[in-house]
Amino acid sequence: MAAVATTNFADRLADAVERKRSQLVVGLDPRPDLLPVELRGEANLGRAEAADACSRFCRGLVDAVAPYVVAVKPQVAFFEALGSDGMRALEEVCGYSRSAGLQVIADGKRGDIGSTARAYASAFLEPANGEPPLADALTVNPYLGRDSLDPYLAACRRDGGGIFCVVKTSNAGGSDVQDLVLSNGRPVWQQVAELVSEWGTDLVGEHGLSSVGAVIGATHPRAVGEARRLLPRSILLLPGVGAQGATPADVARAFTSGPASALVNVARNVIYAFRVSGMDWRSAAAAEASKYAREVWAVSGW
Amino acid sequence: MAAVATTNFADRLADAVERKRSQLVVGLDPRPDLLPVELRGEANLGRAEAADACSRFCRGLVDAVAPYVVAVKPQVAFFEALGSDGMRALEEVCGYSRSAGLQVIADGKRGDIGSTARAYASAFLEPANGEPPLADALTVNPYLGRDSLDPYLAACRRDGGGIFCVVKTSNAGGSDVQDLVLSNGRPVWQQVAELVSEWGTDLVGEHGLSSVGAVIGATHPRAVGEARRLLPRSILLLPGVGAQGATPADVARAFTSGPASALVNVARNVIYAFRVSGMDWRSAAAAEASKYAREVWAVSGW
Repeated sequence: MAAVATTNFADRLADAVERKRSQLVVGLDPRPDLLPVELRGEANLGRAEAADACSRFCRGLVDAVAPYVVAVKPQVAFFEALGSDGMRALEEVCGYSRSAGLQVIADGKRGDIGSTARAYASAFLEPANGEPPLADALTVNPYLGRDSLDPYLAACRRDGGGIFCVVKTSNAGGSDVQDLVLSNGRPVWQQVAELVSEWGTDLVGEHGLSSVGAVIGATHPRAVGEARRLLPRSILLLPGVGAQGATPADVARAFTSGPASALVNVARNVIYAFRVSGMDWRSAAAAEASKYAREVWAVSGW
Repeated sequence: MAAVATTNFADRLADAVERKRSQLVVGLDPRPDLLPVELRGEANLGRAEAADACSRFCRGLVDAVAPYVVAVKPQVAFFEALGSDGMRALEEVCGYSRSAGLQVIADGKRGDIGSTARAYASAFLEPANGEPPLADALTVNPYLGRDSLDPYLAACRRDGGGIFCVVKTSNAGGSDVQDLVLSNGRPVWQQVAELVSEWGTDLVGEHGLSSVGAVIGATHPRAVGEARRLLPRSILLLPGVGAQGATPADVARAFTSGPASALVNVARNVIYAFRVSGMDWRSAAAAEASKYAREVWAVSGW
């Protein structure tokens, strides 16, 4: 059944989690002003040079953290901020990560309707001109409803990708809309969680997990537990550990549906660790990734 | 006061609306398979050639429709689907549109938090390396709350841009989340509309309109009227006229806050008009844009 399993994102991920004993994802958030001096130099970089430096930084990070992580999560915004040069860097980084055996979760939080949604699905999750898809999975925004996600779901079924729907975010202002109380007494985000659970039912793989996952901020430990209950088969992608203040212990409840039923994303505390420790940037990232991977695995109880 | 007015997006737009007697926006949704044969040729195009053809198509459209429209709305997804080559085409099209005196509304529906939101604001609304911002305004998703929009609001105040928050979309599935009923008896989207109205209060310009607008699907005529009431100073960006079935008459109620208080976006029925009429693609687009602009102006009552 191995050939079948590789066509389902959740199964590919679950295999990697069990093989590497890691549920860690490293967020690739390259900011030109924060790069190691050896990459950015001392002068102000033009966009093309900045994009090139960001690409080298991310590829170096991939080499450094690959033994400890199952996926990388390039944050599309940081590449977009460098224009078309940045998008070329994103293409390089995604291809390089795939070659290193990592799953690529493009963090774009895309959301639109009709032919536009089909274009986003094509941009991120579909092969083109003989090239593999840019990413294995894409984060998406559910505010526009089920039919806005149909093109991604179709791409996932056909080409083996995945999506993570933004359900409950780690920022304070997330409550403005997500915590509005519905007439049934529940907050909006819990109703969205139930919808996401439904949307993923026909993308459940052999490990019992769906390729339709959910983004749940680790900064809300109680919400993590509630999300686990509402989304029993979804892989929960948990940002907020590290710089945003959550700890591995805050996400322990996310793993009750299996070792691969949640992924913990750490970005700044890994990729910019050299700025604190003074170590070589690759060694510093490897050390932090190794530490977070062990800590998360321990709290996951597997 | 002219120098001050040009620094506020809503004022620039209002000036253009009154000068051109038009509230029309043409959506630039370039799809390689639908381009005129003279641009796409007969063979399957590689990405670089497809991006080049899309850029020439959009620039030709800008020339054709410029007399009749106040803004163009490039749909970022269609450019992203062509990778970094597509993003270079987007840069060309945005620059060309600005040179033609049009406002550029980048339709990206972006939404993220913290430093990521700052990166999106930088990508679309801030000048960089001596170049003007990519766009005059950006569509954004409000599901992540007020603080997720702060970086755009800061950019708007500083650099004179605008945002349009997605409030009520034109697709059927939009009801899945947007129409959930809150404990106060109102649907989610109406509460979001009130939040958007608040968020825009300190970006109101000399014409009494805010640079924080809202996207309201024209396919819901009653919602358009309700949105007008809830968002008295917001410019309503109304997609859904034309291919999606709404007519200019369906949006008449949007204009009660002034001639520039709403913009009607038409994409397919203008840019692909040549596929129906058999005319030259530029002439066909110009004819349809002229027709829609007159019809919308007539129903607006100004």
